[in-house]
Amino acid sequence: MSLSQTIFDALDSVPLVDPHSHINPRSPASESIADLLGYHYYTELAHSAGMPRERIEEPGISPKEKVSRLFEYLHHINHSVQWSWFVELARELFGFQGETIDRSNWETVFDLAATKMSEPTWEDEVLRKSKVERIFLTNDFDDPLDDFDTYRYVPCLRTDDLVFHLALPQTRERLAKATGFEVTKLSELRHAIGTLFAHFVKYQVRACAISLPPWFTPREVPVVDAAAEASLQRVLAGQANQADRDTVSYWVFWRLAEFCQDTNLPFDLMIGVNRKVYPTGVYQGQDLYDSRWSMIQYADLFNSFPTVRFPISVLASVSNQELVDYAWIFPNVIANGHWWYSNTPTFIRHDLRARIDAIPRNKIIGYYSDAYKLEFILPKYRMFKRILANVLAESIVCERGLSETFAVELGTQLLRGNVDAIFFGHE
Amino acid sequence: MSLSQTIFDALDSVPLVDPHSHINPRSPASESIADLLGYHYYTELAHSAGMPRERIEEPGISPKEKVSRLFEYLHHINHSVQWSWFVELARELFGFQGETIDRSNWETVFDLAATKMSEPTWEDEVLRKSKVERIFLTNDFDDPLDDFDTYRYVPCLRTDDLVFHLALPQTRERLAKATGFEVTKLSELRHAIGTLFAHFVKYQVRACAISLPPWFTPREVPVVDAAAEASLQRVLAGQANQADRDTVSYWVFWRLAEFCQDTNLPFDLMIGVNRKVYPTGVYQGQDLYDSRWSMIQYADLFNSFPTVRFPISVLASVSNQELVDYAWIFPNVIANGHWWYSNTPTFIRHDLRARIDAIPRNKIIGYYSDAYKLEFILPKYRMFKRILANVLAESIVCERGLSETFAVELGTQLLRGNVDAIFFGHE
Amino acid sequence: MSLSQTIFDALDSVPLVDPHSHINPRSPASESIADLLGYHYYTELAHSAGMPRERIEEPGISPKEKVSRLFEYLHHINHSVQWSWFVELARELFGFQGETIDRSNWETVFDLAATKMSEPTWEDEVLRKSKVERIFLTNDFDDPLDDFDTYRYVPCLRTDDLVFHLALPQTRERLAKATGFEVTKLSELRHAIGTLFAHFVKYQVRACAISLPPWFTPREVPVVDAAAEASLQRVLAGQANQADRDTVSYWVFWRLAEFCQDTNLPFDLMIGVNRKVYPTGVYQGQDLYDSRWSMIQYADLFNSFPTVRFPISVLASVSNQELVDYAWIFPNVIANGHWWYSNTPTFIRHDLRARIDAIPRNKIIGYYSDAYKLEFILPKYRMFKRILANVLAESIVCERGLSETFAVELGTQLLRGNVDAIFFGHE
Repeated sequence: MSLSQTIFDALDSVPLVDPHSHINPRSPASESIADLLGYHYYTELAHSAGMPRERIEEPGISPKEKVSRLFEYLHHINHSVQWSWFVELARELFGFQGETIDRSNWETVFDLAATKMSEPTWEDEVLRKSKVERIFLTNDFDDPLDDFDTYRYVPCLRTDDLVFHLALPQTRERLAKATGFEVTKLSELRHAIGTLFAHFVKYQVRACAISLPPWFTPREVPVVDAAAEASLQRVLAGQANQADRDTVSYWVFWRLAEFCQDTNLPFDLMIGVNRKVYPTGVYQGQDLYDSRWSMIQYADLFNSFPTVRFPISVLASVSNQELVDYAWIFPNVIANGHWWYSNTPTFIRHDLRARIDAIPRNKIIGYYSDAYKLEFILPKYRMFKRILANVLAESIVCERGLSETFAVELGTQLLRGNVDAIFFGHE
Repeated sequence: MSLSQTIFDALDSVPLVDPHSHINPRSPASESIADLLGYHYYTELAHSAGMPRERIEEPGISPKEKVSRLFEYLHHINHSVQWSWFVELARELFGFQGETIDRSNWETVFDLAATKMSEPTWEDEVLRKSKVERIFLTNDFDDPLDDFDTYRYVPCLRTDDLVFHLALPQTRERLAKATGFEVTKLSELRHAIGTLFAHFVKYQVRACAISLPPWFTPREVPVVDAAAEASLQRVLAGQANQADRDTVSYWVFWRLAEFCQDTNLPFDLMIGVNRKVYPTGVYQGQDLYDSRWSMIQYADLFNSFPTVRFPISVLASVSNQELVDYAWIFPNVIANGHWWYSNTPTFIRHDLRARIDAIPRNKIIGYYSDAYKLEFILPKYRMFKRILANVLAESIVCERGLSETFAVELGTQLLRGNVDAIFFGHE
Repeated sequence: MSLSQTIFDALDSVPLVDPHSHINPRSPASESIADLLGYHYYTELAHSAGMPRERIEEPGISPKEKVSRLFEYLHHINHSVQWSWFVELARELFGFQGETIDRSNWETVFDLAATKMSEPTWEDEVLRKSKVERIFLTNDFDDPLDDFDTYRYVPCLRTDDLVFHLALPQTRERLAKATGFEVTKLSELRHAIGTLFAHFVKYQVRACAISLPPWFTPREVPVVDAAAEASLQRVLAGQANQADRDTVSYWVFWRLAEFCQDTNLPFDLMIGVNRKVYPTGVYQGQDLYDSRWSMIQYADLFNSFPTVRFPISVLASVSNQELVDYAWIFPNVIANGHWWYSNTPTFIRHDLRARIDAIPRNKIIGYYSDAYKLEFILPKYRMFKRILANVLAESIVCERGLSETFAVELGTQLLRGNVDAIFFGHE
């Protein structure tokens, strides 16, 4: 057995806490493979390969019809890493025995999955096979949090709407409903945000999170600030320009960092996405990016909040060295997982090696699934663990001459230990 | 025999259609190795290593003298991949038997080549040994196209002059001569461009192409637009400023995209080059780049022309992930080859792996030779096929667990199938 | 024995000239391991891993106490390449026999080292074991240069203070003291700089060097220029704005290039660092960067000084391809080592491979130690030589099919030959 296989086997037995997902705790597992293949990774790739958006997004089509239509195009991605996730989960979770899944045999997989998914123990079975103990969610700020198991599904306050969409009336209505009062000025807005934090803290929130566009350059806007107050007024009146909206965004963002400081919550920053670059793309398949941004845009933030831990994800591999080097220098910057467009083997390998070369080992969160359905956690983590095992074998054992035991301990810390330490305070 | 060797052997037998070259169809092969070593890759590297430009560009020196002078410096690049192309073609095409070519033995190679090249069947022999069936050209807009075999040498309308050099009187004179009338306003310019397209379509053009500087950010300028009309007038009068020239550039570029749409032509975009950064460099050895640009500059174009296929080449590897991800999302974005400064093994390997990880397989054009002389097609494609075989062995067979047959089929599609489908409509 | 091991062994016997360091020639070796672990690579990583700055920078603590405190945190970096340097030098130079150094056994290493370091031959022993013949320094412009062996410790004129800190009164006082007269106008400033060059030339200076921020875009400011004169006057009067300071910076920088031209000195450019991004970080652990810059910012400089050789270091690996390609085209651009944040195996490997693919072999300076203490030269060069051997085995022998002898000769040229040729004129 090869060294990297031995290391993989050891890592594959580590019980996981997945520190970022989009799981819906009221419906965490899938009801059919339409829930899996409807994941934007597949719909957008099928669309990119030629499938008209209307065909996959036609209202009212049955799950089986949807899957049938997708398989008209999925052979175009049967070589891809995204497809390998589906094949691996079909084998491991549904007991599918074949090598490939295509137009000739997808119904077998559909039926196998349907049987499995209809069992009342399916959620537990998936979690057990995936060796996952706890999973972080992505909760809207107005999520009640009182109707699911917050031990298994760990609340995480997602704040994009507060920072970027306060100009939308429906955001403010949701905020009013969630906090019990209307925002008419900055002091009330701050109070509303504080109310949200208190609500989430009550339900054992373990992180605050936000995704950010490349141009975002947070700056301090004081709690009391006449110009920011005027900008907010124009936002509330529907008369704001971009500068007003930005001012309010930066004001709210700075408050979030302050509340993270006050409540000792890590603040996950997921940096680099431009929304709706391809507005006629499929659902959730419209976002891309401009890779020209720099971690230096966040220097003021890191300097202003030395006690807040910032687990940071970057969208493109060209940003990885900046992340490595800012985590090398700033105590409060933590390298976090391999996000979205960088969650493919070539980029994971390159980025992970650079992190393991140079960042303190207590400041690397190896991976998170980003999954929408539980079934994806297993194949995504498996992909990562294979790469991690390989990088540890090469970098740690072969190049640095350290032992296999050392490599496994390091890998375990990246996979699990640092999640416990950073989000739960278990050093 | 290793897995990657087996895959290479299978790929090396695939008949090729080379989708981008600078071959002169009236003189496609070389007359002496001076034609090969006069390729800017060698003259600029010899110059960079210390050879004065005047020495290689002295008027009137014989081919043999030119080669003799180059060999005073070529030992400085005998380790490079560019040099390996020349050694490989000398072995495969001229029957050279030695290991190295240097000051001590270049005349042997010169003479061997001269004998071969003087044979009337040389062009055919090179194509046969290179397994090339058809080769795309880079035709000036005023190329008559009627004096060569357009089956073997596929016309491609190169449009840099129209977009960037309309302010030069000689460009407008060439345009007048090619289309039969003088341009005095936008509507006439549009008509002239349409006439060029009609001419090229008559001769089975298969692509429109352009190379673009990093700052280029195409935007829609309507066919009828008073401001653009005024800019054109100042361009024609020799009184234009940079803003006028840019306006006309964007106006013309948008028209090209419209005509590609109307004529169902793929529009090859080769993005990222700054011209004449080193103006005293050797011929064709003066261009470099600023890698700070983003695919997002083309989002409006991709959104505006959903039916036009855009095979895209990027100059630097730091742009590759954006290319991968835009091709992942936009149906009309296709990753095309490994261009110029990225056509070296380290960047090809990294960039190709990332493409194979994540782009639909029908949207990756593996390679083009970019060759000025037929003899270079063989070693350049060989370099690529070795890397492709290696990447397929590692990514597809070892990592994803797919079969060798699957890997060969995928490689064949990247090498040939997608060229047929994208440029010839053979799905 | 593997091919890369054979190549490594050959390369490891090459006597070195280290072309860039921060060695203090009056105290080149360490007195205790506190001098080694006080290197900012360790203090900043310990701080990043959780150690308060005050704990390591408390005035008056003994070397042993300092080391003791550091070991409370150094286990967080025991996997890193930076730590591997310390373990390797402890084994090779102090005769330490263990596998790991941690809180349980550091005193053994401290005592072993103390014994060694107290021997009068320690400096010579370290140099002999490291196979280093000569080492370039980083001399302040006012360094007297008359109190050390300038054969062993080669003077290098560091010019950051002249270009960036002339607005500080203490810089001007140092300049006045070093040159013997006060600067009150441009012509005097030019004369003062000329005096510094003459002083350094007298002591066999072999390079001029400077580190530059990402925004720096040198432009010609004539020797006599009314606007620059006015800017200098405001700088001298303490009334300058940023534009004045930049003008004076560019004026001085251009003069440095002129003096390098006149004195035939290579001008080392180390491009890309932003100073004090984390101002409350540990000593020398405050600098980071914005990777958004381009070599094109230096095109005017390279074009204006064709006879000045510019060995160039870039801070981030995303700049490496531009460096490769500018060195491919410009005769006076030389790729120099692997600097600071790119001096880790993942980036060295990627960057070195790309350089060996495509740059003339006489224009790649393989490595420099950047060391503050002699003891670091051995492990840093060893790390590089292992990677170099590996890259040569893969790229040159396996991929290009050249011989092992060829690979060793190429490696030797990169390690030593080009330093002799570029800095000492030994072609």
